[in-house]
Amino acid sequence: MKLTGIIAYPITPFTTDNNQPDLEKLGQSLELLLQHGCDAIAPLGSTGESAYLSFSEWKKVAQHSVQVVANRVPVIIGISELTTEQAINKARFAAQIGADAIMVIPVSYWKLTDDEIFGYYEAIAATVSLPIMIYNNPATSGVDMSPELIVKMFKEIPNITMVKESTGDIQRMHKIHQLSAGELPFYNGSNPLALEALCAGASGWCTAAPNLLETLPKELYTLIKANDLQSAKDCFYRQLPVLSFIVAGGLPKTIKAGLALKGLQVGEPRKPLTAANEKDKATLAKLLSI
Amino acid sequence: MKLTGIIAYPITPFTTDNNQPDLEKLGQSLELLLQHGCDAIAPLGSTGESAYLSFSEWKKVAQHSVQVVANRVPVIIGISELTTEQAINKARFAAQIGADAIMVIPVSYWKLTDDEIFGYYEAIAATVSLPIMIYNNPATSGVDMSPELIVKMFKEIPNITMVKESTGDIQRMHKIHQLSAGELPFYNGSNPLALEALCAGASGWCTAAPNLLETLPKELYTLIKANDLQSAKDCFYRQLPVLSFIVAGGLPKTIKAGLALKGLQVGEPRKPLTAANEKDKATLAKLLSI
Amino acid sequence: MKLTGIIAYPITPFTTDNNQPDLEKLGQSLELLLQHGCDAIAPLGSTGESAYLSFSEWKKVAQHSVQVVANRVPVIIGISELTTEQAINKARFAAQIGADAIMVIPVSYWKLTDDEIFGYYEAIAATVSLPIMIYNNPATSGVDMSPELIVKMFKEIPNITMVKESTGDIQRMHKIHQLSAGELPFYNGSNPLALEALCAGASGWCTAAPNLLETLPKELYTLIKANDLQSAKDCFYRQLPVLSFIVAGGLPKTIKAGLALKGLQVGEPRKPLTAANEKDKATLAKLLSI
Amino acid sequence: MKLTGIIAYPITPFTTDNNQPDLEKLGQSLELLLQHGCDAIAPLGSTGESAYLSFSEWKKVAQHSVQVVANRVPVIIGISELTTEQAINKARFAAQIGADAIMVIPVSYWKLTDDEIFGYYEAIAATVSLPIMIYNNPATSGVDMSPELIVKMFKEIPNITMVKESTGDIQRMHKIHQLSAGELPFYNGSNPLALEALCAGASGWCTAAPNLLETLPKELYTLIKANDLQSAKDCFYRQLPVLSFIVAGGLPKTIKAGLALKGLQVGEPRKPLTAANEKDKATLAKLLSI
Repeated sequence: MKLTGIIAYPITPFTTDNNQPDLEKLGQSLELLLQHGCDAIAPLGSTGESAYLSFSEWKKVAQHSVQVVANRVPVIIGISELTTEQAINKARFAAQIGADAIMVIPVSYWKLTDDEIFGYYEAIAATVSLPIMIYNNPATSGVDMSPELIVKMFKEIPNITMVKESTGDIQRMHKIHQLSAGELPFYNGSNPLALEALCAGASGWCTAAPNLLETLPKELYTLIKANDLQSAKDCFYRQLPVLSFIVAGGLPKTIKAGLALKGLQVGEPRKPLTAANEKDKATLAKLLSI
Repeated sequence: MKLTGIIAYPITPFTTDNNQPDLEKLGQSLELLLQHGCDAIAPLGSTGESAYLSFSEWKKVAQHSVQVVANRVPVIIGISELTTEQAINKARFAAQIGADAIMVIPVSYWKLTDDEIFGYYEAIAATVSLPIMIYNNPATSGVDMSPELIVKMFKEIPNITMVKESTGDIQRMHKIHQLSAGELPFYNGSNPLALEALCAGASGWCTAAPNLLETLPKELYTLIKANDLQSAKDCFYRQLPVLSFIVAGGLPKTIKAGLALKGLQVGEPRKPLTAANEKDKATLAKLLSI
Repeated sequence: MKLTGIIAYPITPFTTDNNQPDLEKLGQSLELLLQHGCDAIAPLGSTGESAYLSFSEWKKVAQHSVQVVANRVPVIIGISELTTEQAINKARFAAQIGADAIMVIPVSYWKLTDDEIFGYYEAIAATVSLPIMIYNNPATSGVDMSPELIVKMFKEIPNITMVKESTGDIQRMHKIHQLSAGELPFYNGSNPLALEALCAGASGWCTAAPNLLETLPKELYTLIKANDLQSAKDCFYRQLPVLSFIVAGGLPKTIKAGLALKGLQVGEPRKPLTAANEKDKATLAKLLSI
Repeated sequence: MKLTGIIAYPITPFTTDNNQPDLEKLGQSLELLLQHGCDAIAPLGSTGESAYLSFSEWKKVAQHSVQVVANRVPVIIGISELTTEQAINKARFAAQIGADAIMVIPVSYWKLTDDEIFGYYEAIAATVSLPIMIYNNPATSGVDMSPELIVKMFKEIPNITMVKESTGDIQRMHKIHQLSAGELPFYNGSNPLALEALCAGASGWCTAAPNLLETLPKELYTLIKANDLQSAKDCFYRQLPVLSFIVAGGLPKTIKAGLALKGLQVGEPRKPLTAANEKDKATLAKLLSI
């Protein structure tokens, strides 16, 4: 699997009456992402409130996503677990239902040493043959993986084949490029860094933005691939206000609000997270010109 | 309930063969804490690997702890949950089994606004009549609660009655004292700050140290209450090397290693956490003069 | 010289017409500090706008301060210079005029390595026989000296005999105490940490607070020495609102405003620093109950 | 003046015997920068140890630089002063000797409020008619200017016409672009960010790298202007190891070492700064393939 382009992150819709995963709405949101030209779908990421779901809910969302996408593009299932054991349970399930890859982030309570992080990935990788994307996002997970550690795991653990870097620090991408001699594909996970990450050689952009910006993220990627920097820059600055807004407000909250504004009611984030307030909705409506 | 003194944090022992909670060892470790003169017991805190247990494991540990302590001192059950719903489930269970209080920390994946944190505590407090201790420890939970927010919750939510401050920033304690006009009891949750927190008016010290230092933490508290600063200072510096060591190495890992050195085999922390390595065990043995 | 107690920091008064050092007012402000029971005087510290003076101005203020104090208490002259050469020039001058000690802080533009900092102090110490107080205050100087480096310099450079720690991190003081086996006297340079630093064994408190709080800082020190923690705590909390205010607002600005409120017109800080605004003056007046 | 391209930063050579500015060597180093195709010369920046010179030394270096460059490209004189008065003195001198612009950074001891920073720039700008480049580099100066403040000064102070952003945070550049609707030209001052800053619309790159990398920085700029992103990326990664090295080691130290390796002996940085050690020189020699 050589993954490139836009890897899109769906939200997990909840029913409005009892806050349960709404599979019908999930299917609709996945169809929209495919219509917007996304190159892969990554359910149950940070945007998908993966960490807030029970295991049985998580399994339902994973399975339904694979079925709806139906091999039209690759599906990468997100796993964010505190214990190695539960991460393995999810990895096995992802393999069983025919996911194309898993994206794994080691959530922390107690800080993990590099050896503990290595052991976490090694144990998961030993269990499944799926390609694994390392996901580094210390702001949510509390675990920060250095480029050195990431490249070491890429070199020593066979099915680790990609990394999603979400710190927003472009120097991390430079370092990954240098340490792996360009061999480890890296993906941008920080929306307001999309232009620069792609300029610096990112293989793709992992983003929830297509939920709201539709084909614009894909256009940016295409312009970069066409070596047209000037048009890419214009395309990026056009979408930057929305990118900044959804990051500042939190993705589940703002993407769900934006989808509702666009006509797809996907419920509220799960408590203690709350829905966007009226002021934020108004700002977002203006940014989306609705 | 007017809680003062040493609130002791037991580890959660695991069986060595299959890494399951070992209730017999748990009982033994609780008896030791009581022998060391601790004024309250707080199972299922950070030290107790609360966040790494399944709900059914968590319930077993909570229930057994209450039974073993058997009202000899108050029992405060720790709750660290990502979703409001699951925090409520645990609060209800704590009430059912006769816990004296709960200590609640809002774990985060997506950052929480002050309103979301307030809503989290408010919902839990509306469900049980137990006294609630706010637990602020951003290093583990990813949520940082300001003194302003903490005092606001104390004033507006009836059964919030205490706060455990673990940032290690003495100015937070000063601020809580000032904002609440001395009405909100605060407890020190940063081991190397014990002397100063008690000097600044902390009602007690929440600590796993008595597992290894036995009666020394209680002696420090007693000296402060006796207004004997000079002896308290000496008592503190005597235990500081061990306090620094267990904090730097992570409490479950170092306390479990230390208990083993003292003859109580309580197993390893749960993966991805690992046991202390030989070098750390040797250092700890020397610090404990064993 | 065994320095203990309150080391008081005068401001450098400026004339109101042309913003030049006003030696008469300087003399008056020094007399007030002596009346308030201060145990030593430290002109040309951060409070004294040392870094903002020309060399000739700096010399006038240093010389006049020594003359006014006239051996009633020790005088410690502050030196904060970017180049080693100019620091040496000032150290020599301090020795010539009969200062009792110098307090030295290595200001940075380019970050200094530990070896460069060591070389800076070593070169100064080789030039004068005065006792030298290391002054660590990264918030103003841009240089952060670890306890390890500080204790190393104390051990290896003969006339380094004291350290003023202003990071506000009590753990630094613990570390200095431990690494030097209690041999290196440390002084608190963070006003809102005064109670705890003294409880932890600080030899004294370096502070501009006596300019406004008069004898209160000395009372705190005396109560600690009398082993009366409870009264010390009350005394500290009484002065904490003023301590927090002067630190938050910047010492030259707030101390000068406070002295004016008390009747001693000492001019404005030097540009780009500005005088306290009306709102801050009103707050300060209320805090000082004037 | 519409400044674009590579703004090159010379070091200030010192004589090896007595560490005084060496004007002859300065002239030689300026000629080399011009030979490497630099579009402007900026003496007395951070690289030029501006902050470590006496006023008379500073004047000599400024004057000689203007004379040597002799209008072949614009000369931008760096000013980094603690007091407004001395910054004005330098600005006046720069105007007298025929500099084309000044680059001003407000060095701090006491933190400055936004109003104080505004006042600092306003006072300087009122004194000279030269175009002023705001220079934001909190790591050296201790003053951090937000994009909001920078754009406000650009809008309200007539001769502020450019900004050099050295935080290394690409989001600051995005914000400046957005807040000024593309009107305020920004220049990259963080070497390892050169590719991305130029992709994001930077008008130029302020850098000491041409001292060692000769024409490579200019090539990168030219490729970007030619809209050839792929070649620009390759060009950037080729020079990145050197860029990272000189930033990590400090510019005066590493650039002086590199020039010596290339045959131009320019002395050591001024104390407390020290010369590069043998290990660093060997690494640099290897990176420069000498």
